[in-house]
Amino acid sequence: MTRRKRGGRRPRPEGATSIRQLPHRSIVNPYPPLEFISADEVKLIHQTALRIVSELGLEFMHEGAMKLMQSHGAKVDFDSGLVRMDAGELMQWVNKAPSKFEVFARNPENNITLGGNFVNFASVAGPPNVSCLDKGRRPGSFEDQKNLIKLGQSLNILSTSGGSPVEAIDLPAESRHLDLYLSKILLTDRIWGATAIGSERVEDALEMVAISRGVSRQQLKNQPSLTTVINVNSPRKMDSEMTAGLIAMAENGQPCIVTPFTLSGAMSPITIPGAIAQQVAEALLVIALTQMVRPGCPVIFGGFTSNVDMKSGSPAFGTPEYVHGIVIGAQMARFYGIPYRSSNVNASNAVDAQASYESMMSLWAAIMSHTHMINHATGWLEGGLTASYEKYILDAEMLQGLTQVLNRPEINEETLAFDDIRAVEPGGHYFDTEHTQNRFANAFYSPMLSDWRNFESWQEDGAQNASQRANGIWKELLNNFVAPPVDNEVRLKLETYVKKRKAEISAS
Amino acid sequence: MTRRKRGGRRPRPEGATSIRQLPHRSIVNPYPPLEFISADEVKLIHQTALRIVSELGLEFMHEGAMKLMQSHGAKVDFDSGLVRMDAGELMQWVNKAPSKFEVFARNPENNITLGGNFVNFASVAGPPNVSCLDKGRRPGSFEDQKNLIKLGQSLNILSTSGGSPVEAIDLPAESRHLDLYLSKILLTDRIWGATAIGSERVEDALEMVAISRGVSRQQLKNQPSLTTVINVNSPRKMDSEMTAGLIAMAENGQPCIVTPFTLSGAMSPITIPGAIAQQVAEALLVIALTQMVRPGCPVIFGGFTSNVDMKSGSPAFGTPEYVHGIVIGAQMARFYGIPYRSSNVNASNAVDAQASYESMMSLWAAIMSHTHMINHATGWLEGGLTASYEKYILDAEMLQGLTQVLNRPEINEETLAFDDIRAVEPGGHYFDTEHTQNRFANAFYSPMLSDWRNFESWQEDGAQNASQRANGIWKELLNNFVAPPVDNEVRLKLETYVKKRKAEISAS
Repeated sequence: MTRRKRGGRRPRPEGATSIRQLPHRSIVNPYPPLEFISADEVKLIHQTALRIVSELGLEFMHEGAMKLMQSHGAKVDFDSGLVRMDAGELMQWVNKAPSKFEVFARNPENNITLGGNFVNFASVAGPPNVSCLDKGRRPGSFEDQKNLIKLGQSLNILSTSGGSPVEAIDLPAESRHLDLYLSKILLTDRIWGATAIGSERVEDALEMVAISRGVSRQQLKNQPSLTTVINVNSPRKMDSEMTAGLIAMAENGQPCIVTPFTLSGAMSPITIPGAIAQQVAEALLVIALTQMVRPGCPVIFGGFTSNVDMKSGSPAFGTPEYVHGIVIGAQMARFYGIPYRSSNVNASNAVDAQASYESMMSLWAAIMSHTHMINHATGWLEGGLTASYEKYILDAEMLQGLTQVLNRPEINEETLAFDDIRAVEPGGHYFDTEHTQNRFANAFYSPMLSDWRNFESWQEDGAQNASQRANGIWKELLNNFVAPPVDNEVRLKLETYVKKRKAEISAS
Repeated sequence: MTRRKRGGRRPRPEGATSIRQLPHRSIVNPYPPLEFISADEVKLIHQTALRIVSELGLEFMHEGAMKLMQSHGAKVDFDSGLVRMDAGELMQWVNKAPSKFEVFARNPENNITLGGNFVNFASVAGPPNVSCLDKGRRPGSFEDQKNLIKLGQSLNILSTSGGSPVEAIDLPAESRHLDLYLSKILLTDRIWGATAIGSERVEDALEMVAISRGVSRQQLKNQPSLTTVINVNSPRKMDSEMTAGLIAMAENGQPCIVTPFTLSGAMSPITIPGAIAQQVAEALLVIALTQMVRPGCPVIFGGFTSNVDMKSGSPAFGTPEYVHGIVIGAQMARFYGIPYRSSNVNASNAVDAQASYESMMSLWAAIMSHTHMINHATGWLEGGLTASYEKYILDAEMLQGLTQVLNRPEINEETLAFDDIRAVEPGGHYFDTEHTQNRFANAFYSPMLSDWRNFESWQEDGAQNASQRANGIWKELLNNFVAPPVDNEVRLKLETYVKKRKAEISAS
């Protein structure tokens, strides 16, 4: 345990909302991880990944990265961009990555630990569209982006605010990251994610997070405070802008979530073990790069292996193959001793039973296999093309339920309740025993979204299905939103920084 | 392996339906079981259960059972009906129950194994109401009962037809079990469940199943061919009619699914370990009774521990506490070496996201904890008060997806696909590689219900949500239903039997 004590369940200050939630807290999985393959099979995948890196290599498009890797033991072909690395040297760099680290939030109570048995949830990031039951599906706006950031802050189950919950299409593309960062800082007090397309957007994030936390850029290097997702352009290709973003993050000691996008049958082999071997190979070489930039830099091993529908070519999510990908990917990350990231995904076009069962497939597998960071944990719909207000609530409910499973029942004389059983006669009931009365307020999980009333009461009250109820819940949360306090001087500094940078950008 | 070889995946003869399904097959879980508590904690629950049986006892209302138990070592108080039994004697009887056995279907290809790593699914049983999107919710009819039996037979993922999928309220209560049994035999060729309210209904089931399988009643004793659920009227009470049914089943070598209904906070302690201790105690003494009736008789250890909403008193299903109940219950059943039963449950009033996530909570826990028989696997809605046509299809989809997770990926040179990875250049794709082309038809799970089209195609095609699509699927399955062949002489014998028995019943 490297982190400060959290004192267990701390109820958060609540507004006037009547929405029931679990308290904001660190989530720890007390059970052994789910494993689908043997230690020998893990090694077979590892050996295949090493062959991919040493014999085939990855194509880089960023010359600085190529030179750096060459000077650190890689074999670089500057014409083709192919970077290869022998197993021994590769693993020497990979092994420098820490197995556990803390990430620092503006509010120290919201620091998170990545590694060990900790489970963290980040909300949806990246969709171009947004949807709600009232207005349907449309391109994302700055208003929607702020709403979804507020919603994330309102939900205790989320550990981090994540990246851009939806693109703000109505803002200029070249400077909208500044508006996003400002919203992340002013509307939340949790960890958030930088946009790593190029080094400038990372630089802005670093400046702003340092201001918000009141620390110097030098201090920041030893206090990771931002995450970002770095996708490999699978198969075996690293985009130049992404690489520049990664280098800027690593130079400043900030953790990248290195995530190959290995869609089996399209961007990786149609057999899941092959797709994972490729995922591992791609991740290892990019993780090695972070360690060449800054040895010991925190980094996260990401997995996004799913499959395509071979009839249509459409990507599929929350499938049995996706479950295999998550669980085996987690085994590989444990083998390397690097914190693991997966996601809560689905391919549904509506917030319906399909959205729910595909998400549940993803979530139980991710949580039970000891994923440390579950991205897109709330709000992801339609294979990531849409952020949904109602799905945001549905997901929060599923996360709450699944994390309550991690509250391992204590087996002791008190919970075994022999005296209580003796006190109730055959055919009687336990509603009013002392044992029950002493515990009834907090004995069981209280859901936020589930409706357990009988059919008649439910029908009389409008017969709302779960998505319709979710619609009411997000509105109530937004109506009752109270932004976390921020120092006026800090706010001014941030606003000044954003203004200056926007001027620079529009002048360039 | 006590059963005949099945030759893996056997596609079933199909009608004109275009509905994609996995082939009908035995399902085996290759992974170690999910476990939440330690071996020492299992023993603590066991010891508490023994104390409940030996110190507190269960109340029986059936004099024959009380006498039988007295003559087999129990301490019986004939005034109160309380039956107690010391640990040593109790366990001597419990230990006679087999850990694995086969149940025989009219079509031998549909025999099932209970025990080991086998997973079996039975459809919904017991609801008084039925619902579909077209006609809403209404009391069940004989027509609905037959439709749901046909639907079960049409779905390859179900191993058994189970009990009455919905009550046929339009048939006379005293003889409707005969109509149910005849439908089960003529419309399916799988295992089915007897109604065990009293010995007469069991006797009818035994006669009819013997006719249908062309075996004598004597042969039947060594070839279990029926199951039935025996509920304990928790806390600690056994109804007289249920006990009579249990004795009739056990005398004839048929497996009872002994299932205490231990709703935590209402019919058992508010602490889940206490609820499970009570569940175990109740199950053990009733299981012991089956072994006194017929030593070695197959029997199933059932669990239905869930919780109530302490605010309303409503039962809750598919909750985190239900997951604890399933997994710890399975650990207890393994400790005793008796096949385990749990269920696919939810408390939703609509076939919506709640129905889906509560069912998924139940199902992943049941499957990953090595439940051998999952009852109510398809169609259960509203805490068991309604059988839903659309939920039937939604559940079948979730069962298919989860059982595909049990197809453990093989890790070998072919699946690791190094040569395939070498063949695709960086940034390329795998759609047309030889490795892909050789495997694309069967590489991935093809869903029955999920819609993976892009938003625009889905919207143009009517924007149907999963429940609406399920409505189309069950209709197509029913339209294309073909009853399994039955020998004309057998049919005549069955119809004659039913006619004779109806006459006897109406005369009595």
